[in-house]
Amino acid sequence: MGRVAAKSRFLRVGFQGELGAFSEEAARGFLGENLQPVPFQRFEEVFQALTDKKVNRAVIPIENTLHGSVHENYDHLLRFDLPIVAETSVRIVHNLIACPGVPFRDIRRVYSHPVALAQCLDFFTQNPQVERVPYYDTAGSVKMITEQKLTDAAAIASAVAASNYGAHILKKSIEDDRRNFTRFFLLCRRESRGRLAQQNPDTPAKTSIVFATRNSPGALFRSLSAFALRDLNLTKIESRPLRGKPWEYLFYLDFLGRDTDPNVQKALGHLEEAADLMRVLGSYPKNC
Amino acid sequence: MGRVAAKSRFLRVGFQGELGAFSEEAARGFLGENLQPVPFQRFEEVFQALTDKKVNRAVIPIENTLHGSVHENYDHLLRFDLPIVAETSVRIVHNLIACPGVPFRDIRRVYSHPVALAQCLDFFTQNPQVERVPYYDTAGSVKMITEQKLTDAAAIASAVAASNYGAHILKKSIEDDRRNFTRFFLLCRRESRGRLAQQNPDTPAKTSIVFATRNSPGALFRSLSAFALRDLNLTKIESRPLRGKPWEYLFYLDFLGRDTDPNVQKALGHLEEAADLMRVLGSYPKNC
Repeated sequence: MGRVAAKSRFLRVGFQGELGAFSEEAARGFLGENLQPVPFQRFEEVFQALTDKKVNRAVIPIENTLHGSVHENYDHLLRFDLPIVAETSVRIVHNLIACPGVPFRDIRRVYSHPVALAQCLDFFTQNPQVERVPYYDTAGSVKMITEQKLTDAAAIASAVAASNYGAHILKKSIEDDRRNFTRFFLLCRRESRGRLAQQNPDTPAKTSIVFATRNSPGALFRSLSAFALRDLNLTKIESRPLRGKPWEYLFYLDFLGRDTDPNVQKALGHLEEAADLMRVLGSYPKNC
Repeated sequence: MGRVAAKSRFLRVGFQGELGAFSEEAARGFLGENLQPVPFQRFEEVFQALTDKKVNRAVIPIENTLHGSVHENYDHLLRFDLPIVAETSVRIVHNLIACPGVPFRDIRRVYSHPVALAQCLDFFTQNPQVERVPYYDTAGSVKMITEQKLTDAAAIASAVAASNYGAHILKKSIEDDRRNFTRFFLLCRRESRGRLAQQNPDTPAKTSIVFATRNSPGALFRSLSAFALRDLNLTKIESRPLRGKPWEYLFYLDFLGRDTDPNVQKALGHLEEAADLMRVLGSYPKNC
């Protein structure tokens, strides 16, 4: 009963992965602790759930400093009409996590997603007594070792995962490369956007767009003149070839400025002349 | 004895992953069957082995249509001086693979890398009798089921992996999204490049470069004018923020043209004026 009452105060936030995934950490960065995380297996399901009002917000990863842009989520941003209302950057910290009371010297096996295991090779080189065991999910491996109360095993996952399952962190930050950051977007439905967009107009803002051009020499150059002529500063540009259309490209572009600013509106009008397709994915406070 | 004699005729080709990984398939696309694949655990080890002459060539993935650019390999391309001499694109086809004589109706478990399992969700939805079991590596899962002669299990991996381990393909191409392609580069040492670069000058060529600019408004626009003014056609552009230097960016750029062409040399000279750093990673026949 208390549970139902509590739930209604909480925003339901959809994300892909298990509870305790880095997307949940990003969600808490956006919205604080008053949220109910709703995990899904696929990114597409997250977008569909927000469209169908099964969740109030969605959090999706859009790029990683080691692994590049998540093209699949750009595809979903183009297909669903769900504006970006915020961005954040989460450092991917891998922690060695065990059941309460289990000391490091007893650990013989470490469970985690193979991508996380592969990002901690130095740890395994320095600790050859420990066997690596691949598991579905980083947070899921913490859930498993705590449910089974394993006393000779650990998991590699986020601090949020350790806290969710009442486990303790044996070693913090065992990843090889500390420059591993993922940028996340917070999405809402278009009808909720008005309320969220009432930000201080003096706060620096970013706008994310997607556009397509035919690849005649100089087509991109002409498109970018829309921004250069108005001193608008780009913070991201990326081309993506369109399969099956060998000379056509999508471009992902982020720039500093708010989509309600007259100068930005002129630039977007100018770009529409030069491009075959142009979509504003959202304007949001600059935070990365 | 025959083995040693045979080896000396073969190029030793380094790549990251297990035997039968998609990088090995790319290597065979570049060099045919007369090669000796040399697997390494990390990308950095592949670059180091080529530098140290432990292998004759290296094959690295540089971008994937679903997952974006492999930034780590761009970092290694900048740090090691190993020119790109060819490009190829491999469609990532996931096959259901079992021991000879094992029929599909007997399969109860399927082993593979979690990324491959996650790219075949439709197959598992349609076949709920089959359990997904995460394993280190796609090709490694074929090796395991054949070594253990499992009669109720299958693996998901490439056709090369099935052939390497004498397994048979039960179902071809069970991936959800057929637009999953990875682009690979073939690398050599600089002293071997002269011989490899004697291509027909009429073959269309691509050149890959990396450059850095300060992010003043219009800096990228000025940089791209080097190409637009000379009608050089871009085939890829991507920005990458430099961590710790919030207003500085690396750009990855591919364009049509050979680095020995006078028009290309003028464009690169012009770009050097506008950029803080500029490096040619290689010129190679256009093949993607």
